[in-house]
Amino acid sequence: MAKFMDVHHGMKGVTAEQLQAAHQADLAIEGAEGVHFEHAWADPASGDVFCLSEAPSADAVQRVHERAGHRADEIHPVPLSV
Amino acid sequence: MAKFMDVHHGMKGVTAEQLQAAHQADLAIEGAEGVHFEHAWADPASGDVFCLSEAPSADAVQRVHERAGHRADEIHPVPLSV
Repeated sequence: MAKFMDVHHGMKGVTAEQLQAAHQADLAIEGAEGVHFEHAWADPASGDVFCLSEAPSADAVQRVHERAGHRADEIHPVPLSV
Repeated sequence: MAKFMDVHHGMKGVTAEQLQAAHQADLAIEGAEGVHFEHAWADPASGDVFCLSEAPSADAVQRVHERAGHRADEIHPVPLSV
């Protein structure tokens, strides 16, 4: 397992309810891929959303996001953290 | 106080020691600006580093990073999180 930070662009105006619903959609199906989405942070002004996960691979992260209906624009392995 | 996610580009090859030293440099001076850097995650392959902070403003975040010698390329207020 490894840590990943993925980024979604274009979610300008996202609301707290929409972010919560999107996160719940990920949580509902993540187990099938061995992924866990730990946190998500949204900037409604720029439309950027950042998701932190533990996952076996970036592809697994993307598969969960795609099936939940919100493909990530960037997925970064983040092996280093403080 | 608000939450911010800032992004640094161009830190390709960053090591755990360098990330730790950069974070410590922020922590050593953040108090003067009322900022607290909570976490940082690094992708040495792409050179992107993500920093999560609590701060009074994006400008305050940038001032700490500048004085510590590593100006952020993007600073996003992230009022929404799950």
